[in-house]
Formats: sequence, C-alpha cells, structure tokens
Amino acid sequence: MKNSFGNSLTVTIFGESHGDSIGSVIDGLSPGIEINYDYIKNELDKRRPYGKISTQRHEPDRFEIVSGVFNGFTTGTPLTIIIKNENICSKDYSHLKDTPRPSHADYTAECKYHGYQDYRGGGHFSGRITAPLVVAGAILRYALLKKGIKIGTQISKLKDITDREMTSSDIDTINSTLFPVLSDDVREKMTKLIEDTAKNGDSVGGVLKTIIDGVPSGVGEPFFDSIESRLAHILFSIPGVKGVEFGLGFGFADITGSEANDSFSFKDGRIVTLTNNNGGINGGISNGMPITFSTAIRPTPSIFREQNTVSLKEKKNTTLSLQGRHDPTIIHRARAVVDSATAIVIADLLLERFGEDYLKD
Amino acid sequence: MKNSFGNSLTVTIFGESHGDSIGSVIDGLSPGIEINYDYIKNELDKRRPYGKISTQRHEPDRFEIVSGVFNGFTTGTPLTIIIKNENICSKDYSHLKDTPRPSHADYTAECKYHGYQDYRGGGHFSGRITAPLVVAGAILRYALLKKGIKIGTQISKLKDITDREMTSSDIDTINSTLFPVLSDDVREKMTKLIEDTAKNGDSVGGVLKTIIDGVPSGVGEPFFDSIESRLAHILFSIPGVKGVEFGLGFGFADITGSEANDSFSFKDGRIVTLTNNNGGINGGISNGMPITFSTAIRPTPSIFREQNTVSLKEKKNTTLSLQGRHDPTIIHRARAVVDSATAIVIADLLLERFGEDYLKD
Amino acid sequence: MKNSFGNSLTVTIFGESHGDSIGSVIDGLSPGIEINYDYIKNELDKRRPYGKISTQRHEPDRFEIVSGVFNGFTTGTPLTIIIKNENICSKDYSHLKDTPRPSHADYTAECKYHGYQDYRGGGHFSGRITAPLVVAGAILRYALLKKGIKIGTQISKLKDITDREMTSSDIDTINSTLFPVLSDDVREKMTKLIEDTAKNGDSVGGVLKTIIDGVPSGVGEPFFDSIESRLAHILFSIPGVKGVEFGLGFGFADITGSEANDSFSFKDGRIVTLTNNNGGINGGISNGMPITFSTAIRPTPSIFREQNTVSLKEKKNTTLSLQGRHDPTIIHRARAVVDSATAIVIADLLLERFGEDYLKD
Amino acid sequence: MKNSFGNSLTVTIFGESHGDSIGSVIDGLSPGIEINYDYIKNELDKRRPYGKISTQRHEPDRFEIVSGVFNGFTTGTPLTIIIKNENICSKDYSHLKDTPRPSHADYTAECKYHGYQDYRGGGHFSGRITAPLVVAGAILRYALLKKGIKIGTQISKLKDITDREMTSSDIDTINSTLFPVLSDDVREKMTKLIEDTAKNGDSVGGVLKTIIDGVPSGVGEPFFDSIESRLAHILFSIPGVKGVEFGLGFGFADITGSEANDSFSFKDGRIVTLTNNNGGINGGISNGMPITFSTAIRPTPSIFREQNTVSLKEKKNTTLSLQGRHDPTIIHRARAVVDSATAIVIADLLLERFGEDYLKD
Repeated sequence: MKNSFGNSLTVTIFGESHGDSIGSVIDGLSPGIEINYDYIKNELDKRRPYGKISTQRHEPDRFEIVSGVFNGFTTGTPLTIIIKNENICSKDYSHLKDTPRPSHADYTAECKYHGYQDYRGGGHFSGRITAPLVVAGAILRYALLKKGIKIGTQISKLKDITDREMTSSDIDTINSTLFPVLSDDVREKMTKLIEDTAKNGDSVGGVLKTIIDGVPSGVGEPFFDSIESRLAHILFSIPGVKGVEFGLGFGFADITGSEANDSFSFKDGRIVTLTNNNGGINGGISNGMPITFSTAIRPTPSIFREQNTVSLKEKKNTTLSLQGRHDPTIIHRARAVVDSATAIVIADLLLERFGEDYLKD
Repeated sequence: MKNSFGNSLTVTIFGESHGDSIGSVIDGLSPGIEINYDYIKNELDKRRPYGKISTQRHEPDRFEIVSGVFNGFTTGTPLTIIIKNENICSKDYSHLKDTPRPSHADYTAECKYHGYQDYRGGGHFSGRITAPLVVAGAILRYALLKKGIKIGTQISKLKDITDREMTSSDIDTINSTLFPVLSDDVREKMTKLIEDTAKNGDSVGGVLKTIIDGVPSGVGEPFFDSIESRLAHILFSIPGVKGVEFGLGFGFADITGSEANDSFSFKDGRIVTLTNNNGGINGGISNGMPITFSTAIRPTPSIFREQNTVSLKEKKNTTLSLQGRHDPTIIHRARAVVDSATAIVIADLLLERFGEDYLKD
Repeated sequence: MKNSFGNSLTVTIFGESHGDSIGSVIDGLSPGIEINYDYIKNELDKRRPYGKISTQRHEPDRFEIVSGVFNGFTTGTPLTIIIKNENICSKDYSHLKDTPRPSHADYTAECKYHGYQDYRGGGHFSGRITAPLVVAGAILRYALLKKGIKIGTQISKLKDITDREMTSSDIDTINSTLFPVLSDDVREKMTKLIEDTAKNGDSVGGVLKTIIDGVPSGVGEPFFDSIESRLAHILFSIPGVKGVEFGLGFGFADITGSEANDSFSFKDGRIVTLTNNNGGINGGISNGMPITFSTAIRPTPSIFREQNTVSLKEKKNTTLSLQGRHDPTIIHRARAVVDSATAIVIADLLLERFGEDYLKD
Repeated sequence: MKNSFGNSLTVTIFGESHGDSIGSVIDGLSPGIEINYDYIKNELDKRRPYGKISTQRHEPDRFEIVSGVFNGFTTGTPLTIIIKNENICSKDYSHLKDTPRPSHADYTAECKYHGYQDYRGGGHFSGRITAPLVVAGAILRYALLKKGIKIGTQISKLKDITDREMTSSDIDTINSTLFPVLSDDVREKMTKLIEDTAKNGDSVGGVLKTIIDGVPSGVGEPFFDSIESRLAHILFSIPGVKGVEFGLGFGFADITGSEANDSFSFKDGRIVTLTNNNGGINGGISNGMPITFSTAIRPTPSIFREQNTVSLKEKKNTTLSLQGRHDPTIIHRARAVVDSATAIVIADLLLERFGEDYLKD
C-alpha cells in the first residue's frame, strides 16, 4: 500500500510530472454519488498557479474520469481520474540527474531507485501529482457536503503575517476564495510578501488551518486508526508538509490541564464542549464538535539563488542555480490538497462506520 | 486494521485497563532476533510512574512472551506479549459511565460503543495499553541497535522550561536516564514544576524531541508511505499526542527557502547535508542524515479540580471531581512509548526495503 | 498481514504447538455481541479428538477471553483469546529438527526461518493453531445465527464413502453431530474405515461440503474481494486443505452452459434461482441463494509407516518412523475449523457492507 | 482493498466493458525491470479471441503505459496501464438492465449498486477487465523469467477431452501456443468440440493446469498468507473460475497418507521430493519443487438458447434470448489471465521475502 491510502475507501495515486499522465483511482465508493464537474473544476482552480504570485507554468489540468461513473453518478466500482501532462519542457530538468536540488527528492530518489527514477521535474515526487488527489477529494467533498459535512482551510499564517482565526461559520467564505484568508487586508499583505520574496529569488512557507464541521460523534478508532492518525498520515504525504497539530497542538505545552480540558455541557438538547482545545477528537474518536487542525508548509525548496550541492557523477561538491518556473510559495495551492486529503479520510471513516452505501445520494 | 499497524511488520494491540490482560502481537518479525529481557524491562521502567511526580498506582508490568520466541530468539512467527492487570481498584471508576471526564474518551466511547465499552479506568483508551507497545518496540529497538540504528527522545520543553537541544551524540546519555533531559538543572526545574502542579491538583504537558540515527538513505516511500506519514500515524495513536513535526516543522513558517534548504556536500566521502532542517527526510525518503521530529504532549486530562460535565442518564449539566491516582504529567512516560513506536516504523520500513531476514542477528 | 486476515473485521492468530500459549485476536467486532460460552465450547469439542478414531493426546482446550468482553458482551475493542498449552510431551519431537517429516512443514520452516523455528510438534504450523480460530469463528457464528445466517459442514466424502448431499434444511442436524454426516450408516462405515486405516498405521482424507444459508443478496465485491476469493483465502490457510470449489466447482467442466446456468425466477415474491450450480454467488457477489462450497482435505501426513527423508545435518538420505499420538484423519476436526473460517469471512463482508454495528444484538 | 490485491506489490484494477477505458496500476515494483512490449503483446494475444472458436468482437487491446516507466525500465513508482475501449456496440445490452442474464452478475450488481452500475456488457464484471491484468502480469512474468522462474498453463481438460499432463519441461512449449494443449490431436478434438458447441448455441468449460518452476524454497507464509491462500485469492477473482486445487487437490481424498506423502531425498546435492503430490508447497511455504495447481473454468454463461429469467421492473418471470457476440468457451483465453495472476502472486511473495530490489535487472 505504498501509493494507496484508506481502509474501506482507497485512493491510489500515480504518475510523474513529465510522463504521459498523472491520475488516481478511488475504490470503495458508494454507488450513486453525483459527479459535479463544476465543483471539481473549481477545486482544481484553487490548486492551480494564482496570479503573479505563482509559477508561470500553465497547466490546463483537464481531467477525465475514465471509469466508475455512469450517467453522471458513481457506479460503486473503481473511479479512475486521468490528467494528461500537456505543457512540458523537459529540457529544464536534464541536469538534475547529476546535481540533486537541496531539500528536493532528487538525491533520495537516486538512493532508492538506483538511477531508474524519472528525474524530470521531480517525477513522481512533483507537487503536480496532487492534482488527481484534488479531483478525488473534490468528488468526496461534494458528497460529504450533501450529508451536512463541510471542510474549509485558511492560510492562518504566512511568515509573520497572521489572519484572524477561522471558525465554522467562515467555511463558506473561505471556500469561495482563491487565496484563502478572511481579511482582505491580510490578503494584500501576504500577496505583497510573496511577490517581494519572488523578486528576491526566494520562497516562503506558512501554516494552514482546517475545520471539518458536521462529523457525527462516535466516528474513528481508539488506537492506530484514530482520526488524528489517519488525517496526519495523508497530510504528511503532501509534498511540503512538515508539521500537523490538532486543536491547540503544540500550544498544549504552554497551558495546564485545567485550562486545556474541554468541559461537556448540554446546549439545545445536544452535548457539546464549552471549549474545543482538542479539536473535536477525544481518544481518537469524534465528539461532534468541529474537527480542527493546522498544517505547517515549508518554503518551496525551488529558489533562484545559487545553492551548494554535489555532483553524483564526479563525486565532488558543486553549486546549482535553478532556472525555469517555480512557485515562491505553494501554501495557497496546498490548501486545495489539504481539503481534498481531509475529505478522503472523513469519507473513509464514515463508510467504515456506517456501511458502503452511506454516501449514496 | 483498526488496532493493527504496519505493512511488512505488523503490531496488533489489545486490552483494557481493568480487564484481565493487555498485550500485543508482532507479526512479520525476522527469525533470529535476540530477545534481551533486561533491555525490555529497562524500557518498561521508563514508561512506569517515576518517583513522586507520577501516579501512585504501582503496576509491576510483568510481561510474558507467550509465542514466537524459542531458545531466546524470535522464530519468525507471531510474537505475543501478555501483561496481566494486577493492581486494579475498579471501584474508582464506576461512576464514570454516567459523567464523562472532560477531554477523556468516556463520551466518545459511549457514542461509538453504545454503552458496551469497558469504562473502567478508560478501558481500551487507557494509557496503560501502551505498555505492550513498549515491549514490542523494545524488541525491535534492540535489533535495530545491532544494525547501528539508535533512537532517543528527550523532553525538549515542559511548559516554559526548555532543555538544550539533543544531537545524535546525546542519544546514549538520554537513553540512560529515567527523566530524559540533558541538563541536571533542567531536570530539577521540571521536576519541581511537576510537583507544584500536582499540589495544585493540575497537570502539564510539553514537547518531546526524537532522533533516529543511522537509517541508511533510500528508505521510505514517495507518497502515502512517506516516513513522515508512517511515523505520524503511529505517534498520533499514542494517547495525549496532539502535534507532530519533522525537522523544523512549524518553524519552517518563519524562514525563507534560502534559509530552510539543506545543501548537499561530501564529507569523508559520504554525501551529507550541511544543515538538517528537513529532519533527514526528502520526499518521504531518508537521506542518510539523522531523522528528527518533535511530538506535542497535552497536559494529562485527569486533574483533581472540579470540572463541568454532563450526566448522560439525567441529560443535564453536572460537575465531576476525580479522585484516585493520576499523573500530573505523562511526558516522561510517553517518551518510552514514542521511542518504541518509532522503532516499529523503522523496522517495518527496513524489512519492506531489504527483505524479511534483515533484522536477523 | 501474514498471520492476520480480514478487512473490516480482522483475525490475527499466534502460537506454537509446544509453546506457552496459542491464541487469536479479533479486531473490528461490533460492540454488543453476546458471548455464548456453551456455544463456543461446543464448537471446540467438534475440533477435539473424537473417540477412538483420533489422536489420544487429550487437550483440554480451556480458552480464556482476556480482552474485548465486558459483562458478557463484546466491547467493540480487540477481543483476545488465549489457550494455554497444557498436555505437552516435547521429547516426542526433538529429532525432527534434523529429519523433516514428509509432507509436513519441517523442511520449509527450516528454509524460511533458518533453524530458529520452534520445531516441536510442528510449531506454528501445527493444526493445534486452529483451536483459537475456532473460538473466534464461534463467537461470530453465534452472532450471525441471530441475524438468520446459518453455517453447516458435512463430510461429503471419505475416500470412497459418500454421504447423501446436505441441503440448507440439514444444517441444524449436521451442527448437532460430532462426526458430521447425515446418514448413520455412512457414519458407521466411515468410522470403521478410519479405525482400519489407523490399525494400518496409515491415514485418509476426504471432502467437506459447506452451506451458508441466509446471506442477503448484494454482499461481496466484484473482483479481488469476491466471496470466493475471500473464502478460498482463509480456507487454504487451514492445514491440510488442498482444494476448494464453489457450487459445482470442478464439475462445471463436465456440463454445458445450458445445463450449468442458474435461471432466475420469482418465488413467493422473492427472486431465486431454479438451480444453484454457482453456489449462491454471481460475479463474486451473493445472489441470496445458499452459498455452497467443498473443501478437499488431504490424508494426515503423520503416519506410522517408515518413510524416506533426509538428514539435514549429515546431508544424506535416511528414513523416519513416527511415534507418539497422531490422527488417522483430521477431516471431522477440520469441519469445525471450516465452519469458523467461514463465519469470519461472512461477518467481515457484512460489517463492510452494512457498517460497524451490524452484528450488535 | 476491494479492487486491489497484494502486499508488497499491489495491483489495482479498474474499468467497465463499455466505459472509456479499462486499466490497472502496479505499485511496489522494483525499479529497473525491463519492459518487453513484444512479450506483453504476445500475452495479450493469448487472451484475445482465437480463430473461429471465439467471439467475433475484435478488440485491438492497444495498451499504453502512462506512468512508472522511463527509458524502457520501471522507475519503481506506480506503473499504470490504460486500454481504451474501442469496438463498442452499446445497443446490444440496454435491455439487460431489466432482465438479468442467468449466472451473470447483472442481478447481483443491481442488488449491490442499486441501479447505478454500468450494466452495458457486464460493466466492471466483464471478462474484458482481465486484459489490463494480463499486461500487469506479463510485465512481472518477464521479470521472473530473468530470475529463472517460469510459469505455464495448459488446458488439461475440456469437457471429456483430456490432454497429457504437462511437466516443467513442457512450459516453453505450452507458452508458445495460442491454444495451450500439448498434443495436436487433442487440440483438434477440443477445437471441434468448441465449434460444435457454438453451433448448438451452447458453451463448455474445463480445467486449466498451471506449473510454476524455479521458485526457491522458503517463500510464503505459514497461515493466512500461505502460497495456496494467495494464489487462490487472485484465481477466484477471475470471472468464470469456480474451483482451485493444489497438487493432487481433490484427488487426495482417494488415497492414503502413505500414498500421498512426498518423501524427501537428495538429488545432485539438492533436497527434492520423490513425488510432488503437494504441488511444491508444505505448510504454505515453497519447498523448491514445481508449484502446481488446477483451476476449474465453468462454461461461459452467455449462451444463445432461450433462458428463464425475471423482469425486475415488472416483477414477474420472463425469458431472455441473447444476441450479439459471445465465446462458446473462455478457457483458452482464461489461461493468459491465470498465468498473469500467478506472476503477480509470485512476484509479491518474492519482493516481500527478499526486499524491494529483488526483480531489478
């Protein structure tokens, strides 16, 4: 299960940046899930380069669903998504075989695949591989929406600029934006920072905050399949993710138990917690409150400054200067991937809990 | 695979805090791994309550290996660890069925198991369930040691007290201590903070930092089975863990790519990186540098102050005051669990990479 | 997943014939399944040596459930079964390390485990390991019974003696016998054949026929997780099983499509098939008819005649004469294992299809 | 893992008979496996309709590998095979939604997928789905060949016509034929029987015998992952397979242990067995002898005689007469699928045993 993920619902991912196609297979889908192509395209647009602040490589990201859909609804058999690679300039990358880019996977791929890896544009390690994951997630996210479950992600922090904290009531707003912050002022500041960084040939990272609203209580497993475990598993597979925390996360270290504990209370006949420091999860299982987590995105390793590296062939130190088209940050694009990855986990947990037909219209 | 984890090597965990026994099964072990009982006991001791700063429940944690070992070595067939529950006072917990403890799993267990859960002492959600995980991990960790792979974990932060940062050369030192900090001064301060917190009827959390030294380059998988994904999966299954970050983790948000990137260089004929901000992992695969990560441990939710909760039976708000024996912090005990969980993942990755016999003596 | 089986419901098996204990863990159980100890003991009795025709090794097979059950019902967390090995004479087996018994796993275990295997009494390869599988299966089979699903297995053939073919209406009868044939006359003949074979120091095999009645239509998966695939997978893990066929099985080769096809028809408002040559499965999925299959059991390889083998140490040919206690046939004992294995697969399929709570009382 | 199979090496299958494409993904491949397109095409040809005795639907089966191959060798990342559906007449099938074909999956698909299934041409249940499985298997089979492991399958029986029994030395011969029998005389008789059956509007089945030569001893697992379990699992997923037996299989029921046991002996310094009744497997693990098994293939359910069925809409009995293009037998085509399925299992077992690089050139 190296490139597959999930228990009752499984997503398999394949492809290389400069190969023929990239794609994914979703297996274990309920039959009768409506495919909303506009919704999917909209999610793909969120993952695409944005304005001046992103790479100028323009991928049309035309996806096809080549199996598992009939008359506009899922059949229940494996659904396969194919995205042809169209706008490829392989010449950009040929020298990377010898001089691995710092903090990229060029060197580790060489160690693991003994030179057989497709090194063009990062090959299977390229962020591009997340496009079919976004399609898979969008299909599920739309089905979840019909069940009253909403997922939304904001850029809570870009370097030293922070947005006001999102709550469940902001999910629709955040989902309607291509650059997901709540305050226009913050959007401007962040955009400016990214542009300035780009001019400097450098890159920045940040933190994404995600809320999942509407998951019923009692979903998840006590130990190895805790909601945290499953979400973190898929989140850490997204290129550039280096940290994941639930609820207060690392902030728990700064407070005491009496400050941290989430007291239970009845509200409108329903049991809620008065605070939600644990991010909606107790003992790995949902408690009915919004599930919240943050994801740390490192600065894009593709920068335009000269960097130290090695020549694998000549076995000596050398330097490397990247050219071509690269993102000064991927955080706004990663947001679409995080939303989709989240939808995959939640759909899987619900199908396992309530049976194969749960997501049927 | 709810209570099982791993691909080539699988660990299954079972038991309840106040049931007959807790235990684990390791499947997929190489034959011919030496069982070092002293080493295992030593690891279990690290997980046991420590001095005055821990619960006064004294569990002898006598483990038995009831299958999979013959003449002191693993046979290669499933190895089963049993720890009998001996020092049990079930009366402490009977009222918890109705009034769920804040931030514990009492309420979510009720939602998921419909009243059939063993609610005594947290049942299957108890931190006690980690004892057989420690045994499983210790068996593997000892085998890894013979392959030149060392794992060590320090308490890097307890509330506002921080230890100096551990490096690979500190691993032996940190592994020889029951309260894992490098500076004696810090140990004293942390111990005092824990004692003071206990007197207050409160609890504290903190951050653990782990280093894995000696993993060869080229281990791990590019996407869903990245080293980060697999480690985070098991780490987030440990009760009390709410955050995991690799290398700089959330700190990546504060710097630029030119500061963050780890340049490659030859050193003594070997390729190394000049910094290790990515924690030894590029593209999900080991690059031969030490693998580093931090784990956020929340304050123990069992505190002695009166807390707000609900009565499930009477469907109204009420309060709860815990009695009995509880830890004012679990961070020093969690360290043994983190080390063991880490060993499980690394062993699994190595067996998958190099074949079933890899850990044979 | 070497010694684990199942998707939504997983059974893990462990132990060696002459080790401390054998056992199994069931994970993914619905909470609220009643544990009927008498029912389980009765199933274990069917697996035990029977009268004069079986080995005189008398195993009490006292099983304990050490986790996952509270107040007589499953909790929903892993249920662990332990059977201590009590009546052991290890001296019987010590020479087998050097001279592998023909058609046993002694030689292949040596190849795979490099001498570290527990060779006493077949170790992990012993038929004894199936006892905890029988307990696991009996728990599930009793839960299935409450859902209207019945499983029963007859000895349809022992060498050249055949019983009349079982139908769904015979399931209760066959389940009430220790030597599962429908005709008393056949029981006598078979018993006599077994006794005569035993006197000859030889052994016999035969064929078991199983019916599963009451599985709703629409359960199973189209390709790799067809009902046939999953049942065959577990059946072929039972020591001594060398063939599995569904419905007419190999008999399909003797007839034409027009004879073989099962026509659909309405009967009492329900869709049935007029014949059931396909054993209740079309395209891997249940059609609502009884699911039927046959299992070939080879003659027990433990015979008392001198046999040719090799000395591994001396690297030369030699002979071997077994002593001790051995079954002249295991077919009547294997029947309890087949029933239990079947229950595991059907429970797993139902939980996956209808959700985690499906087997709750 | 519904449409995925394998542990270290996983194959996922997707597509519908009349959808856009069918295909498969192989994950966990060693890097550096040579792709021999001629070899693959040759295997696909074996699966294609053969002369007058097969359906006149001519599928060109042009496959593309759209990921995981670079410069003619596997990269080690997921390899994806796409076969476009080209020669489709969807009008043939539209009425099947209401009147399920006997012994096809039309009815069970309706039960499971609630009307959302793609019912055209059997949809995901079509034998056509096995074409990408053949490609996947051919890639692996070619890699196994380079390791000295040969796989071959004959039609051992077609109705009452039997071929002489294949041995390891016949594998090359059998692999060079499109209609896999050893005797020309038998080929003629079988071809004639198939033609006569076709004229009658009927169909026939038979038995395939497979030999795997060259698997080293010590491969496989003792219990749930026995070689038999894994092979049977995938074999029973092939449409039309209703029985699987290893070595003597059901024939074991007719003989005694003293006749059945395979004695060990030294031959040219190597340990062999004097007979191979157990088909090269003891205790689930290879003993170094050829692995042998037989697979029962039922008569094709698509026949041209009028058959009884039901109208799902009108809820009454009715009749059905198939038109269009159908195979009077699929046994010679199934042979290519069995060979490929076998290669998948053996490759998976070897990679798990010896590590990820085992199949590298």
